[in-house]
Amino acid sequence: MGVSVIGTYHTKVGRLDDSLYELLVKAGKGALEDAGVEAKDIGGIWVGNYSGGGFNNQEHLAPYALEIDPELRFIPAVRVENACASGSAAIEGAKNAIESGEVDFALVIGVEKMTSLDTKGVTKTLAMASFWPEEGAKGVTFPGLFAEYAKGYKDRYGFSDEELRTMLAKVAAKNHTNAAANPLAQRPWKCSYEDILNLPDEKNPVIAAPLRLYDCSLVSDGAAALVLTTTERARKLKDKVVEISALVHTTDYLALKKRSNSEFEAGKRAIHRAYEMAGITVDDLDFAEVHDCFTIAEILAYEAMGLAPDGKGWTLLDDGIVEVGGKLPVNPSGGLKAKGHPVGATGASMAVLAARQLLGDAIGHQVSGAEIGLTFNIGGSAASNYALVFKRVK
Amino acid sequence: MGVSVIGTYHTKVGRLDDSLYELLVKAGKGALEDAGVEAKDIGGIWVGNYSGGGFNNQEHLAPYALEIDPELRFIPAVRVENACASGSAAIEGAKNAIESGEVDFALVIGVEKMTSLDTKGVTKTLAMASFWPEEGAKGVTFPGLFAEYAKGYKDRYGFSDEELRTMLAKVAAKNHTNAAANPLAQRPWKCSYEDILNLPDEKNPVIAAPLRLYDCSLVSDGAAALVLTTTERARKLKDKVVEISALVHTTDYLALKKRSNSEFEAGKRAIHRAYEMAGITVDDLDFAEVHDCFTIAEILAYEAMGLAPDGKGWTLLDDGIVEVGGKLPVNPSGGLKAKGHPVGATGASMAVLAARQLLGDAIGHQVSGAEIGLTFNIGGSAASNYALVFKRVK
Repeated sequence: MGVSVIGTYHTKVGRLDDSLYELLVKAGKGALEDAGVEAKDIGGIWVGNYSGGGFNNQEHLAPYALEIDPELRFIPAVRVENACASGSAAIEGAKNAIESGEVDFALVIGVEKMTSLDTKGVTKTLAMASFWPEEGAKGVTFPGLFAEYAKGYKDRYGFSDEELRTMLAKVAAKNHTNAAANPLAQRPWKCSYEDILNLPDEKNPVIAAPLRLYDCSLVSDGAAALVLTTTERARKLKDKVVEISALVHTTDYLALKKRSNSEFEAGKRAIHRAYEMAGITVDDLDFAEVHDCFTIAEILAYEAMGLAPDGKGWTLLDDGIVEVGGKLPVNPSGGLKAKGHPVGATGASMAVLAARQLLGDAIGHQVSGAEIGLTFNIGGSAASNYALVFKRVK
Repeated sequence: MGVSVIGTYHTKVGRLDDSLYELLVKAGKGALEDAGVEAKDIGGIWVGNYSGGGFNNQEHLAPYALEIDPELRFIPAVRVENACASGSAAIEGAKNAIESGEVDFALVIGVEKMTSLDTKGVTKTLAMASFWPEEGAKGVTFPGLFAEYAKGYKDRYGFSDEELRTMLAKVAAKNHTNAAANPLAQRPWKCSYEDILNLPDEKNPVIAAPLRLYDCSLVSDGAAALVLTTTERARKLKDKVVEISALVHTTDYLALKKRSNSEFEAGKRAIHRAYEMAGITVDDLDFAEVHDCFTIAEILAYEAMGLAPDGKGWTLLDDGIVEVGGKLPVNPSGGLKAKGHPVGATGASMAVLAARQLLGDAIGHQVSGAEIGLTFNIGGSAASNYALVFKRVK
């Protein structure tokens, strides 16, 4: 049974005045309105949220979603968490419930309010997504974990420091530039990779060598929401329908030291299995929104997608393939790097961005004639991995 | 499509030496072994955990479940959270996935490690399950929230302080006494309600008037796990089969002041809908494990079950109906009050206890000839509510 998206909403991303609660309600209301579905017809609510406890002293967030509409009272609502992939995890829970017949219409909301803490607090709260006793508790931060990937990649393929720094700057420049077309993005900036390389050290300090500030995604508030139903029902209700043709979730060991630091092994499996389930190859994709939490992650995502052989992902940035207007634009929204990364919302954000692209109503750059798109969302240092293929089916 | 339990495991409950990680792995391994299912046949893992972040600095706990068995690598694993009902929420996620056909065998693990914090830390971490801005942040604790129920019940039905205190002591005495037969329980104590009433104030101080220490459930470490599959498959694999004949989840407003403080309105709906789905009435139940996080909650649960009219739940304690050997033993395990309440594990614990009763292999008191049982698990001040009916079907 197919499951399709029939309503979406995406808040602005950035340092927002809205509280966690306001973001949740705003996104939920917006998606219901866009779907044209009455609240009383919603059979369940799935909330993707990484750490309401850590950022906002609020665990047990899901019941607050009843505030979206009085008709939602008594409806099942649950929070689903897999670090920065919590939004995709919420979609998976809702999709299973629809496919099981338990629910006809599901509301999925991804939300995070991170700017409530200072940088130190955010860094600590995010580090709880690592394997705490051996990583977070020993002072390993997420920039530190992805620095391991950058070093692993450099060492495995023999790049110089300069080569590595340049390829990473190209990812950042592409995504900041893409964000300039996205009215909801946090850090729009039309720039070249030279602009980034030329930033003085005080503006682009080393955060965890070799990663600098401009290699890191943003600390963000934001929410995104979707209404899902069966494709059959969606076809009756809507003129245009976007289906989730595949959703594959894989898990790898929580601690990075137990796995490769130069590729996304579980992510690769998720993506290739998703292609198979959707009956496509990478050549069929019209765009992708991928998890560029750090610039190195986007290059590893290219390789996980099979868009380039291992060790050659960086060449796509020179060939223009992944740019808007190229063969396969990656992160046309600006990605986590420049659109922003409200962590628990990100999977839902990617899904909304993908659906809107395929409806021809993109948030930001419209990839013309887009029919098939991929989202690739990871949690922790890529322990949790979700690959979704979205297709325009009507 | 029916979903059944084919393997269970329950750790000891209490102040344990085991870490969060050890409890998770021990329970998962135990349930797999009991099921006789190979790890490679598990299609997904659902981890119920309330606040690994708050108690243990560990969000993103689910991937750690791969440590149970190397064959689990790459299998989807996700954390599900609805406060003290997180264990039931994990069962719901797994059940939907089985019914959708996504997964043949699911591993569900509920786990919490609470004694890592001191009393103040535990109280604060639990308060994050309230509506933080208006409850937790203003100093309202969970004993405080359930004190509101106790006061609401007393006021609505006109009980004296002494009458209230006595009925609550009867719940505590029954559950402590039941726990004396449960080898895994945290606070076994064969006692009468007079023993509790006669405790000196320093041993049974007021925590949040009118609730005293002996009205409160325990701060616990513990884990419980289940392997689930379709009933059809379970019938082929096992000589005895326990089915989840109904699982109903309802949600009420997060903040207590927005709802009744003298009944579990959403819980009542969940339970009665579960009876309907399972094709039973309250008279068909052979036992129940209900959410006695505070003694008043057990009395409200009797009324939510329809075991007594509203305002008359307390009479069941005098009639012996809810005692072991009575018509409908409630919390034969000792309940949250005396077995213990490792919060995110509790829903899974109740399910394991129910399944084991129905298999004739009870943990603690065996209710002879038990064929149908209920579990009733709530999250927060009863914003999240789960009612499950378990039936012996083979």
